Amino acid sequence: TLHPATGKSVTVDDLAPLLPMALIEQEASTERYIEIPGPVRDHYRIWRPTPLRRARNLERLLDTPARIFYKDETSAPTGSFKPNESIAQAFYSKEAGAKRLSTQTGTGQWGTAISFAAGLFGLEVDTFMVRDSYERKPYRKVLIQAYGGRCHSSPSTLTEIGRRALAADPATPGTLETAVAEAMEFAATSPDAHFAPGSVLNFTHLHHSVIGLEALEQIEDAGYWPDVLVACVGAGSNFTGFSSPFLGKSLREKLDLRVVAAEPDACPSLTRGRYAYDFIDAAGMAPISKIYTLGSQLLAPRMHAGGLRFHGASPLVSHMRASGLIDAVALSQDACFEAGLMFARCEGTLPGPEANHAVRAAIDEALKCKQEGRARTILFNLSGHGNFDMSAYEDYFAGKIENQVLDDAALNDALGHLPSIDAQ
Amino acid sequence: TLHPATGKSVTVDDLAPLLPMALIEQEASTERYIEIPGPVRDHYRIWRPTPLRRARNLERLLDTPARIFYKDETSAPTGSFKPNESIAQAFYSKEAGAKRLSTQTGTGQWGTAISFAAGLFGLEVDTFMVRDSYERKPYRKVLIQAYGGRCHSSPSTLTEIGRRALAADPATPGTLETAVAEAMEFAATSPDAHFAPGSVLNFTHLHHSVIGLEALEQIEDAGYWPDVLVACVGAGSNFTGFSSPFLGKSLREKLDLRVVAAEPDACPSLTRGRYAYDFIDAAGMAPISKIYTLGSQLLAPRMHAGGLRFHGASPLVSHMRASGLIDAVALSQDACFEAGLMFARCEGTLPGPEANHAVRAAIDEALKCKQEGRARTILFNLSGHGNFDMSAYEDYFAGKIENQVLDDAALNDALGHLPSIDAQ
Repeated sequence: TLHPATGKSVTVDDLAPLLPMALIEQEASTERYIEIPGPVRDHYRIWRPTPLRRARNLERLLDTPARIFYKDETSAPTGSFKPNESIAQAFYSKEAGAKRLSTQTGTGQWGTAISFAAGLFGLEVDTFMVRDSYERKPYRKVLIQAYGGRCHSSPSTLTEIGRRALAADPATPGTLETAVAEAMEFAATSPDAHFAPGSVLNFTHLHHSVIGLEALEQIEDAGYWPDVLVACVGAGSNFTGFSSPFLGKSLREKLDLRVVAAEPDACPSLTRGRYAYDFIDAAGMAPISKIYTLGSQLLAPRMHAGGLRFHGASPLVSHMRASGLIDAVALSQDACFEAGLMFARCEGTLPGPEANHAVRAAIDEALKCKQEGRARTILFNLSGHGNFDMSAYEDYFAGKIENQVLDDAALNDALGHLPSIDAQ
Repeated sequence: TLHPATGKSVTVDDLAPLLPMALIEQEASTERYIEIPGPVRDHYRIWRPTPLRRARNLERLLDTPARIFYKDETSAPTGSFKPNESIAQAFYSKEAGAKRLSTQTGTGQWGTAISFAAGLFGLEVDTFMVRDSYERKPYRKVLIQAYGGRCHSSPSTLTEIGRRALAADPATPGTLETAVAEAMEFAATSPDAHFAPGSVLNFTHLHHSVIGLEALEQIEDAGYWPDVLVACVGAGSNFTGFSSPFLGKSLREKLDLRVVAAEPDACPSLTRGRYAYDFIDAAGMAPISKIYTLGSQLLAPRMHAGGLRFHGASPLVSHMRASGLIDAVALSQDACFEAGLMFARCEGTLPGPEANHAVRAAIDEALKCKQEGRARTILFNLSGHGNFDMSAYEDYFAGKIENQVLDDAALNDALGHLPSIDAQ
């Protein structure tokens, strides 16, 4: 991981103003396991362990010999896997003496999770929400407020970066990259403040591994071992958190495991990206890493699964992909909505647009089992519910969901702007 | 229970066109236990047992010696306790040969639950949603559609009752009573259709008793016995389902249990109503029963907890109240919102406006324990989440939540219209 300005390896000093030291150390740790601190465990107990459920009605509907299990992260307080991470970050920042956190949020999942967690540890929180979401999806904003967080439309007038963006285009709908940059500037210039990154960095994967650790025990208790693991991938923290505990060498040898990363065909970094050094943010402020990337300057087609609209996969997921540990599939938006509705009608929970990708890929695996007459065990991660994404389903029913496969010209253009790095 | 037209006891023949015989028999059954049918159990396993959780953060915040447990019915597929009932009704109707169900829905909780359940058993479903909700809260309508149900604005042009209501006032916002009447007419005039009542009738209490049966086991497993039980009451099916398994004679003698029904002070049937024979619907189509009532003609103040805006308590809750088995408290809307937000910040789940009443009453009990220095064990039912009620919280934050205690004149007027019945 390289510094965006110098092209040299990132040092502790580069990160220290923004993050608690414990997280910086975790970022570079080579330990196999890092203990979950007591106070974090205590708060996890509010909703963890999350249930492992078997989707029997879905199996019946598909008429497949496959067994379909899912890890139900929708039962978390804010409706997705995100609080695993937000509680850990809030804890470490509180321990390090921070009084407040700042962060970005796209559709609001991370913003609600960090607001909840900050409140638990008595921290204030300022979330910068992409203006387009802020104005069109008011309910996540209300939820942030319910947890005691402050929510600002980004670009805002609170930061230099925001003011500049507004001056350049007062009507801008905002971007996630601008929101990230605003949150980082806000943290860097506020006393006792930390920046709370939502994903990408290594420690975020670590904190979500509680999902897979539980799932491993639970599916063993259920008397099965998975043949196929499935999760959706944006940057990848739910994917790695869910799958990595199954990928230790001894388990891999035992299991003959197929691990499927499900990504949108509008933003298919793992299936069509290049494995190269690139910025992990569009503003060029965050570290440069070797990742599967579509180019940080890519303007991906708009899509409802906002959490998967990221130009690259995180360094860890990318490494897993490059090492041949995992497979990836790119899925179309309408096929994913169709799968999500099938799941809701069978199992009751309406998945979020991101989670629909995991559902689609799991269904496809189950249909393959049917074709081949093989009774494999499929386990997927249901990363979040769709209760705050009803406008997406409304669009689907109104026939307004378009499929927008990323086109080659846009991809090639974005890949032409990769930074040139003389790296190891 | 008396027929609304004749004033005589309701017979099987009166109900047979609308309900499956199995439910009619349950309605009059004197059995202590009725087995849950296998297929209903199978579907319950999608999400049941629901967790029993301890609200440790809330205990800490209140600095109370009390232990606060809650039964988390928000983890059900549609976000509330309702599917316990909808799956049972869909099963019995399917068994009886019905091809479709019709029902009313106010804010949409029952409508979504019955749509999900109908789909599981391959039944079609038509829900009549009070127009005001249909137009102002579109997302529950989308959720009904997601489950494969049809949702009509009530009054509709599909029924005689609806057409008459529209002719009388084309701009009417609709009422729950009209929606009930439309659903009943629709079922009575459609081939192979049953009406799916949401609550009030005895069997609805029976079907929800799975909540209390589980809670009884779970709190015993946790090593405690409750001193106080709390649930909110509209008609009362979540209240009785939750509390009745604790109210068997032998347990009562053992436990010295205080059972608190939490109701809104805008519609306080148990605390200010009269125990008398009254219509259980405003249209005078449903049976007449002896209930705590504010008068079926009462126009209660508008409130966000739409599920608690009912002029009476069901016959069963009323009987429990009249027998001295339970206490009741009337709570103000703003105090309930305040309690719900306190709970969300501590425990993560944002309760629905109805469930906020249970949270408020539980907090009040815990504060009493603090005052008295007694470490009592409080167990309440968290009947539903607020993910589809965000506009209510938006109003709260905007200072638009008004408190509207039911005024004496309106109450006296409504009580003046009770039917005169020469009953036993």
